[in-house]
This record gives sequence, structure tokens and C-alpha cells, in this order.
Amino acid sequence: MSDLRKTSVQDLLRSTDLDREVLVRGWVRTRRGNKYVQFIALNDGSTIHNIQVVADAEKFPEENLKGVTTGSCLAVRGKLVASQGKGQAVEIQATEIEVLGTADPEEYPLQKKATSLEYLREIAHLRPRTNTFGAVLRIRHAMAFAIHQYFNDHGYFYVHTPIITGSDAEGAGQMFRVTTLPEQNPPLDDAGQVDYKQDFFGKPTNLTVSGQLEGELAALALGKIYTFGPTFRAENSNTARHLAEFWMIEPEVAFNDLEDNMDLAEDFLRSLVRYALTHCPDDLQFLNDQYDKELLNRLKFVVDNEFQRLTYTEAVEILKSAKQKFEFPVDWGTDLQSEHERYLVEKHFKKPVILTNYPKEIKAFYMKLDEDGRTVRAMDVLFPGIGEIIGGSQREEDLTKLLTRMQEMHVPEEDLWWYLDTRRYGTAPHAGFGLGFERLILFVTGMANIRDVIPFPRFPKSAEF
Amino acid sequence: MSDLRKTSVQDLLRSTDLDREVLVRGWVRTRRGNKYVQFIALNDGSTIHNIQVVADAEKFPEENLKGVTTGSCLAVRGKLVASQGKGQAVEIQATEIEVLGTADPEEYPLQKKATSLEYLREIAHLRPRTNTFGAVLRIRHAMAFAIHQYFNDHGYFYVHTPIITGSDAEGAGQMFRVTTLPEQNPPLDDAGQVDYKQDFFGKPTNLTVSGQLEGELAALALGKIYTFGPTFRAENSNTARHLAEFWMIEPEVAFNDLEDNMDLAEDFLRSLVRYALTHCPDDLQFLNDQYDKELLNRLKFVVDNEFQRLTYTEAVEILKSAKQKFEFPVDWGTDLQSEHERYLVEKHFKKPVILTNYPKEIKAFYMKLDEDGRTVRAMDVLFPGIGEIIGGSQREEDLTKLLTRMQEMHVPEEDLWWYLDTRRYGTAPHAGFGLGFERLILFVTGMANIRDVIPFPRFPKSAEF
Repeated sequence: MSDLRKTSVQDLLRSTDLDREVLVRGWVRTRRGNKYVQFIALNDGSTIHNIQVVADAEKFPEENLKGVTTGSCLAVRGKLVASQGKGQAVEIQATEIEVLGTADPEEYPLQKKATSLEYLREIAHLRPRTNTFGAVLRIRHAMAFAIHQYFNDHGYFYVHTPIITGSDAEGAGQMFRVTTLPEQNPPLDDAGQVDYKQDFFGKPTNLTVSGQLEGELAALALGKIYTFGPTFRAENSNTARHLAEFWMIEPEVAFNDLEDNMDLAEDFLRSLVRYALTHCPDDLQFLNDQYDKELLNRLKFVVDNEFQRLTYTEAVEILKSAKQKFEFPVDWGTDLQSEHERYLVEKHFKKPVILTNYPKEIKAFYMKLDEDGRTVRAMDVLFPGIGEIIGGSQREEDLTKLLTRMQEMHVPEEDLWWYLDTRRYGTAPHAGFGLGFERLILFVTGMANIRDVIPFPRFPKSAEF
Repeated sequence: MSDLRKTSVQDLLRSTDLDREVLVRGWVRTRRGNKYVQFIALNDGSTIHNIQVVADAEKFPEENLKGVTTGSCLAVRGKLVASQGKGQAVEIQATEIEVLGTADPEEYPLQKKATSLEYLREIAHLRPRTNTFGAVLRIRHAMAFAIHQYFNDHGYFYVHTPIITGSDAEGAGQMFRVTTLPEQNPPLDDAGQVDYKQDFFGKPTNLTVSGQLEGELAALALGKIYTFGPTFRAENSNTARHLAEFWMIEPEVAFNDLEDNMDLAEDFLRSLVRYALTHCPDDLQFLNDQYDKELLNRLKFVVDNEFQRLTYTEAVEILKSAKQKFEFPVDWGTDLQSEHERYLVEKHFKKPVILTNYPKEIKAFYMKLDEDGRTVRAMDVLFPGIGEIIGGSQREEDLTKLLTRMQEMHVPEEDLWWYLDTRRYGTAPHAGFGLGFERLILFVTGMANIRDVIPFPRFPKSAEF
């Protein structure tokens, strides 16, 4: 009995042990048939494929099947047999059908055959029951696991960097304030300012924008580390590529230089895509057929081809001599726009690109200064359709140079005394990068909107569920 | 060359391929010797063990070794040879020593041999460089990986539930407010209240206390899911067992009942402890020798023995007839105190205990009502030295009963319309639990204070680094 109860639809569909008694539980996707026989497509989330339940009218008169409607939950006992019909190798000849939970056809929001992605965002609590979101969420799981496995296999240690942070020194964007002070009339200090000494942490705190600085501390002790946690941006941008809450992976490696960093990024991304192709063929095939006929080709292309590496300076030359007209002008020293990145990746090189050695003015204070004093050892990995999927750098390990950069960029020293200590005591060359998890999932699933690759998206004016 | 650069201390210590040229980089733990020879113990974080670097005075006159002090970072080239001394199988006969980063002996905070755990908390940015925190953080990594591997192997999908939440309906504790409104004089509405319509999300938002409710949505679509993410409590409790920010693992399984839930919790915990014993023998041995001579025995005991299962009602009977005097009286209907739990686990049964079927009044609204109408299908797993390590339940899948419980416990229906939808459409029996990750790490490492098992602890008046 207890064996029967552990069987998933995935198990049954793969089974070659036929003509035996089985129990399956799941949700009705469709029901069709005639007065002699009913066919029920049942799905339990373990796979994109449904198992077909065959209910003979003799055994199951219509009144007993009343509760069997799209969205209802069933427990079905029966015999697993070779299927006579097309589209499936096996099916279940039902002997017992129990309706565990009904779904009123007049009310159930998911019964319409065509439900737009926009509409599904409004019912994000139910959308995992659709083929599309089942596929996306299974792939999301597979990618998260592949990330942990990759790093574990390569001797990295997973480090949980803090979510609530007392330092907003990195300046990577607008931050969410975290507080337990009264929302109205907070206590004030003698100067008439909010008295954060009375707040929970005794000072102003925010949600982290990156675990990198703390990750560096860990790397300069444990050697090879990575983070994988939520990060936040309080930016009022309503785009298909930005979320207020998203997950980021940030490896950091002692003794790595920019070359090593690029090698790691490339091997890492290629391994992840390869993992998806190996472990999620059915879900990828569905998304390929349904949304993006080029998806599988694009994934295979990334696995098979090396990324193009070039400097920012070289990229600017290419862009300047390009025949294409850009909306934004390109000049050495300005940040590249999305149109420029897309031109390089999708038109010029037709493959993923790693751009390096950006002007120091447009990059963060912690990046290692090149010998020319003008550029830093930064790298951005650009993907077709996505743009920047990874941003990273070799870090400045020299205390004096780091302090100079901080002064130039008005980064307050006193807030980062602990970060600077790593350069004071046993400093070492090191490098790392950040991978936006949802951007990876966008690429691997071929979905167009970042709100559709995270279970419960947070963006301006929306924190539902 | 590039091969040499990828070698860790761990690799070298395990190597049987001797008398070859090697390169090792790491931080100096100790240096000792005489006028003929110097011995440098080097650690790179890959293992608790140091590799011994032997520097002959002839090749390395004292003035060349000036920078080689505790905490400095070195790159050492030399020959890997069998060690003549005790305590290590191999060592490196140095031919070249480069100081990558110095650590002034007058200032480096970690050079004193004995550094208390309390002191190390104040320099949490450097403590991963100690043996103790190296061991704890490597074990923490191993446990995180074991968790992902366990669930992946068993067909679960990892779901990222939201960190910022617009519903504070679960009532599991005080919450941190998340906002971008001005800290002073926020905009007010016509009623003179803070106008959250103008806040980032258009309504009040908080940091999550649990991903369970969203996890249930996913389980009722994908079947078997788990969460692993940060959770928050704004409770002003300064204890060795509480953090304001901690990580939690919450599996949720469609079609599981309370029995299944207990089986899962027990198998899961036992697998994790077994994984630690197999994969972290050196780090565990160190912690066993240094802090807690019973650690390894306790871990082996958990792997080898089944947990004791009994109902709350049975536990109350045992406690009432116990000869021990308790500070707090025990009576059916009151919550058990730590002293009661410890008596059951450490004195009466002398093994982990699973308590079930608590009075409904002391448990959350979503737990399934037992047939007697007085108790719910809750379960707490109690561990020696830790107390509650897991709390879970079978969930109430019946919409009418769930609504009644919510009314009785004053949980606002309108905030949880999406949660209730799962009971409206295709409801199914399901169960799950929450495992506090840091409590697991406390148990596995034998550390006494929860602030010592997370890299950067957050607690009242402290959000450093």
C-alpha cells in the first residue's frame, strides 16, 4: 500500500512494468469522451505530461463523474496498461475514482484553454498549475540545483551573506529601508532627526543589493565561495527585465585574476545550459514548441561555442564603424546601451560576448585598476536576447589604490572598515562575478518577461500573494 | 602552469604523487623554527589542516622572511615531499616564497592563540580565518548542499517564495517593515494615516516570517516542493537560540498526511547527519576535540536510532508523573516549556522525540483539526540540546473548517483570498514542516550559540558588516 502511494505520474509514464494495480493522484487537466468511455488527463506536477485515465461508462455512470472537472483533484486506482490510443505509451484503466477536491466549472479561473501570460500574472497563486509555469518552475529548480552541484563539485563553499545590511556603501542602487520604528512620529534625536539608535538594529538598515563585499571576506578565508540569495532594488522601473526582488549568484575566488574569472563564468554558464538540456528535455521541448522555435537551437549553440572575448575599447571601435544607426551615440568613456550590446551579440559576433576592461569612471570602486590607470579589470557577459547576464571583475587588492578609488568616488571609508581590513591583513588577488538568476532562467526558458520566471514577482505597486 | 595554480591544500594533503613541483597559496597560521630551518603552517580554507612549508635558512635568510607572519598571505613554490616530522604525511620544501599580503603583527587581530568566541563575534569579518569558523562554515556548506541533494533526489522542486510580503496574516511573530517612504513626515491620507498607496508597493509590506503559505500553493500544483530562504523575526530576544535573520527549509507535499510528514522529517534529518559524518570527518573531529567531546557520539546516535513518537497528551501524562520539579507547571492545554521538552528528550526517552496532536488553541490556524475537535495534526521534532528543530503539520484542506478556524483565531480572510483559493479549487490533503537551518547547524557542529553558526548574525542592536 505504502509503495503505491509514492508513485508519481512521471514514474508511471516511464514504467515498463505493466498490468499492475496503481494509485495516482493529481489534478484534472481535461476530460473528454462519449457515452461509452471517458478520458481524463491527470497531472501531478512531476512532469509536463499527463497520464490518461480511462473510465468506462458501465463502471462509472455520468452522475458519479460529476465532480471530475478541469482543476478538480482526484485519487484514481486502476490498472496500468499499454495505451491503445495515440500520444501516450501507457494509461490507467480506472477501477476507483475519488474526488478529493472539486473545482466549480463556473468559477475555476484556469479552465479556459487560452489564458494569456498577463492574465496568469494576476492569478500567480494558481499559475503553477498550467503547463507553461509547471515547465518554467521545474526548469528553475533544475538550474538552482545545477548551480549548487557545480560549485560543490568544484570545491566552493556556499556562504549566506546578510539580507539586512547596515551599510549602503556599495551604491549599487536605491534601497529598501528596514525598520521597526513607528510609521508615524518616529522618535527624534536632539538634532530633530529620526533617532535610529532606537530602531531594532540601533542604526539605519536596508535590504542588501549584493552579497559581494561580504563574499570577499569569506573568499579571503575559505578560498572559493559563492552566494545564492535574494537581492533588492527599489528602482521604479516597470520593465520586462527588472524586478524589485530577485535572486543572485555571486562566486568569489581568492587568487583568481580576470582571465580565471572569465574562464569560470564561461564554463559555469555552459555547464548550466548543458544541465538543462540533459535534465529538462520535455519541459524545454514544450517551451520551444509553444513560445520560441529557436530556443533549443540557441541553448545548443551556447553549449557548443566559445564566447567572444574583447575589451570595451575594441567594442567601441566596432560600434563606431558599424553601418547600423544607433539611437545613443557611442564614445569611449560612455556606458554601452542595450542597443549596442545587442548589436555586438546578435549581429556582429552572433554569439555570447565577454566585454572587459571598461573605463574606471563607469564601474564600481572595488574593481582593480589596469596598468594604464584609465580602465579597470571588469567583465560583462552579454547573452542574446538578455543583454548583461553576468557582471564581475578582478578586485582591487591594494589598500592604497583602493582607498584612492573610494575617495574619488565618495565612498565613505568609515562604513567599510571591515572590508578594508581584508586589504590590511593578508590581502590577495581575487575575482568574482554576479549572475542574475532570473536572467539565466529567462535565457534557458525563452520566456520574454522576467515576471514570468519567478513564482511571485515583486515590482512597483505589486507585492501580491 | 595553469594546472599548478588550481591545486588546493586539500589536494596536496591527499596527494600520493610526491617529489613534484607544486604551487600553493594561502594564509600563514603559524611560523616556528630555528636558525637552520623555518616551518610555516599554511592554510587556504579548503580544509582544516594546514600544509607545512619548510624553508631552509640557507635559501631563505631571515630578512627575506620578514613579511611571513601570522595572517600574511603567501604564494609558495617548492617540492611536495614526504614529511620527516610528525603530524603530516607530506610537506613542501620551498624554493620560492612570495608575500602577497602582509599582516602587521602589532595590529593583526587574530594572532593571539586563544581568542574567545565572544571576541570573534566582534570581528566576524575575520573569524572565517580561524579553525573553528572554517570548520563551522564548511559544515554549513555541506549541510546546505545535502539539503538540496536530498530533495532533488526525491523529486522535490525548489521554490523561491517571496521575501517581501504584503500579507502579515500568518501571525508568526513581529515583523520588519519594508518601505521607501520618507523616514520623517511620510505622506498621509485623508484620515491622517500614512498613505501606503504612495509606498513602493502601494501598500504596507514586511519581511517574510515563513514561506509556507506560498509553498502550499506550489505543492498543490507541482506535488512536492521545498523552500530554502531567509526568514525574519523582529523579536527583541537576546538569546543564544534566536536570530532576527535566519534561514529556513520548508518542504510541502501534496497527498502527505501527518504520518508521511513524520517519516519525511525523520528520514531527512537522519540523512543530513549521515551526510555530515561522511563528508566532514575532519571538521567534526576538530569540533569534537575542541568544544564538545560528545558531539560525534550524539551524531552517530541520531543516525542509528529511530525517533520517539508520541502525542502531546501522552507527553503531558509523562511530565505530570515525572519526579523532577519543573519551574512551570504542566497542564493539558498549555504550551510546553523548554524545560519540559528537555526532560522528555534528554532524561525520559534519551533520544529525539516527535510530539504530535497538540491542542488547537496553541497552534496555527492552518493545521488540520483532529476528529475529536480539540487537537490538530501538528508535529514538533525535539532534539537534545536544541529543543524544537522542526515544526510542522498536516494542513487543513477543508475550506469550511479552515474558515471556521480563521474566524476563531481572528485571521483576516480578505488578506488570504489566494490561499483560500487552493481549498476552493481542487483541494487535496497535504503536509509540510519548517526546519530552522541554524538550529540544524548548531546540532551538527555542537556549537552553543546560534550567532556562531551564521557568517554575519543579525540580532537586536547589531547589523554589523
